[in-house]
Amino acid sequence: MSVFTKKKEDFMEWYLDVVRRAQIVDTRTEVKGMNVLLSNGYDIWDRMKKILDEKFYVTNHKNMYFPLFIPEKFLELESEHFEGFVPEVAYVTHAGKKKLDKKFALRPTSETIMYHMYSQWIRAYTDMPLKVNQWCNIIRIDTKDTKPLLRDREFQWTEAHTCHATPEEAVEQVKESMWIYGSFYDECCLPYLVTKRPKYDTFPGALYSVAYDTPLPDGKTLQIGTTHNLDQGFAKVFNIRFQKENGDHDYAYQTCYGLSTRVLAAVIGVHGDDRGLIIPPYLAPLQVIIVPILFKGKEEIVDKLCKEVLEELKNANVTVKYDDSDKTSGFKFNEYELQGVPVRIEIGPKDVDKGGVTLARRDTKERMFVERSKVVETIRKTFNQITDELKSRAKKLLEDSISEVVTYEELEEKFAKTNPGFVKTNWCGDVECADLIKDKLRADIRGTLYGKEEKTTGPCIICTEEAEEVVYISRAY
Amino acid sequence: MSVFTKKKEDFMEWYLDVVRRAQIVDTRTEVKGMNVLLSNGYDIWDRMKKILDEKFYVTNHKNMYFPLFIPEKFLELESEHFEGFVPEVAYVTHAGKKKLDKKFALRPTSETIMYHMYSQWIRAYTDMPLKVNQWCNIIRIDTKDTKPLLRDREFQWTEAHTCHATPEEAVEQVKESMWIYGSFYDECCLPYLVTKRPKYDTFPGALYSVAYDTPLPDGKTLQIGTTHNLDQGFAKVFNIRFQKENGDHDYAYQTCYGLSTRVLAAVIGVHGDDRGLIIPPYLAPLQVIIVPILFKGKEEIVDKLCKEVLEELKNANVTVKYDDSDKTSGFKFNEYELQGVPVRIEIGPKDVDKGGVTLARRDTKERMFVERSKVVETIRKTFNQITDELKSRAKKLLEDSISEVVTYEELEEKFAKTNPGFVKTNWCGDVECADLIKDKLRADIRGTLYGKEEKTTGPCIICTEEAEEVVYISRAY
Repeated sequence: MSVFTKKKEDFMEWYLDVVRRAQIVDTRTEVKGMNVLLSNGYDIWDRMKKILDEKFYVTNHKNMYFPLFIPEKFLELESEHFEGFVPEVAYVTHAGKKKLDKKFALRPTSETIMYHMYSQWIRAYTDMPLKVNQWCNIIRIDTKDTKPLLRDREFQWTEAHTCHATPEEAVEQVKESMWIYGSFYDECCLPYLVTKRPKYDTFPGALYSVAYDTPLPDGKTLQIGTTHNLDQGFAKVFNIRFQKENGDHDYAYQTCYGLSTRVLAAVIGVHGDDRGLIIPPYLAPLQVIIVPILFKGKEEIVDKLCKEVLEELKNANVTVKYDDSDKTSGFKFNEYELQGVPVRIEIGPKDVDKGGVTLARRDTKERMFVERSKVVETIRKTFNQITDELKSRAKKLLEDSISEVVTYEELEEKFAKTNPGFVKTNWCGDVECADLIKDKLRADIRGTLYGKEEKTTGPCIICTEEAEEVVYISRAY
Repeated sequence: MSVFTKKKEDFMEWYLDVVRRAQIVDTRTEVKGMNVLLSNGYDIWDRMKKILDEKFYVTNHKNMYFPLFIPEKFLELESEHFEGFVPEVAYVTHAGKKKLDKKFALRPTSETIMYHMYSQWIRAYTDMPLKVNQWCNIIRIDTKDTKPLLRDREFQWTEAHTCHATPEEAVEQVKESMWIYGSFYDECCLPYLVTKRPKYDTFPGALYSVAYDTPLPDGKTLQIGTTHNLDQGFAKVFNIRFQKENGDHDYAYQTCYGLSTRVLAAVIGVHGDDRGLIIPPYLAPLQVIIVPILFKGKEEIVDKLCKEVLEELKNANVTVKYDDSDKTSGFKFNEYELQGVPVRIEIGPKDVDKGGVTLARRDTKERMFVERSKVVETIRKTFNQITDELKSRAKKLLEDSISEVVTYEELEEKFAKTNPGFVKTNWCGDVECADLIKDKLRADIRGTLYGKEEKTTGPCIICTEEAEEVVYISRAY
């Protein structure tokens, strides 16, 4: 196996290396920005879907699927919302050699087609809350440099869209979505900051937008999800009108939230090391790999114990495989470490003699002997220990990625040297100051901490007028 | 609730009624042939995916996801294969207001893009067997009349594509796919006939094609899946070349197989009745619904028992809901019958007094009293009884749908009166005779029974020359 680019030396090279070699993505499709999600990548995303689907289920979301094609007139109805998407929208104009009467957009997001349906489904307050989730592929012909999972022209995502009879319920729904996403990111052991985006960066048509940003080890940040309180903006355009309990009519109050395969990029980027991926145990498609250590004449007793442990773990609902292929054990060690399998069990003649197995943790590379009777119990404990370890590393990464400055000189220095993670500072609230940050530092104001008001510690970092709020600035992918 | 069209009186009207009212599909999207898959439809399809994914897993298939966009040059490489698809292929020509340098097809099927990747992955015989499955949306701008789930312009499907080092392995793979699909259809309690398609109806580029056809109650048949032995046709075009153990080079031997949401249409059409859907218990997103029968002053004891039974069934891994909404029990009965929930549990004060619950089967409408201590056990037994009942109905439907004729007059009469299911007869093997059947009777030769040679019983039904084989003719959706 050729040597990896070191993660610390060149994060992006390391990322591209690991994504390719650990069976996550293959980019050699001859379709720019549209890649093959390989089996390991697919299976992790599939686990993410299952975790989220459970949360959608307990919070009474319904899964549905809406058309990929969007009639152009729907886009025209919502031109303010669509303006930002316009250059990225792919259009279908032909079927076979025949030109179509009307051209169709491929969904860059599904508000318009979904709300067109909602207007036909909702008549009275009793038809709400309506909470619909959609898993689908999204097409955005982004002209910036594409990067697998970080910036694709086709990607997989979940988008949920809700309708409520009162503005208060919409506010509550925003909070519910924050629980769904937050608890999901926690299960992925990801560090993240939840901010309310500045007004100028709010989703077009929304009252306010909440975003989830993960610090990556190279000091840039990655938006891994958003929630929007849409108020009645879309409902008025798409005529989602209902009769209230008292007989009056009103337009629905809406929210929407989405996250994509970018979360997979975050998991890879945050947890991985110079040997490859590290997948949190409860997210791993394969949790345990059993590798036999073979010596002449001892194959049978080793094979027997491997199979026993395999069955025992399967019965304990652990996802486990036994690799009895004729590759060397060294090759197997490398391969499963590359793929991020959280726990390896090695069984050789010595382990058989001693009445147990050797267990190796992917995260810390620790190895330990475990008695035969304690294998299941120890595996369970180890899953929790690995989860704790990854969460504590994530916590540290987040803490280390936040710094604070009060003068423009300090801010400039932060961004001059490197990508500094999140830089906390004071802002007057004017777009002009935000634009200056963008122009001079190639950085953006991410927003204010959600749900926690922080006191300003000085004047606006740009104009030195009175500051309105404490904001976090970063360079983002 | 308005009255249903009767299934026996007008099957297609009944189908469209039930599909809409049972939360399967909504067609009011303003995109012809592209519909919303509503929650009940989505959830049944999701169960189907899980059942198939388990079978793919135990047979060592890997799930992956390939791009929606297909470079036009790939299609040109495989023009023979694509000819049939050409009029149906949707093309993307623009991004925003800008015309693209190259236009892209939206996948009508994924052979070309997948085999382009395979040619980069396969170098030696040790890289095979390669078995990849893809779940995705498919776009075909069919110009015939669209019908929800039966003929859509966008639909969901699974397509698996495999590569092997020998032709024998490809033949074995065809058989494996037949086990995967056959056992899946059995779990759906569907009747089906497996035939080898006539040479002229073989998938372009394939050695032979095997198809699965379900008889629908209106006497038409529905193709619900296909398997193709592709031999080396595609491998030569896409250069999937490998080194054999002995050092020689050869092209891969391939197979592919697919099935779509049409299976959902078959489940609805075959099992449903004039009250709505009937979903086989192991396919049902909701297996048991608990409905309280409330009388003044007795609400509390009824509610208590409902909750107890709910918890008990949950713990027994039954998918169950307790509907304690304030709708009438009559409304609830209708609604869950419409949605096809296999078992209803009614609990009223009398049931509480007698120390048990009332259980109602969706398929036979039987109701019976079950002692409190036997609820879980009886539910389990009932699931199997319903499954057996639906399978035995399916068997009867298949048997009743097959008839046999030896003269053209008999054949003509069969198709003159109605849609006669499968008509078994003798054929010489000439395309001209098949074309006459198509032209005169608007019917098609489906093929010969797979894996069971049947002796001819007379001359070719059209030309009266010597017959080569026994074939099944039907009108299909």
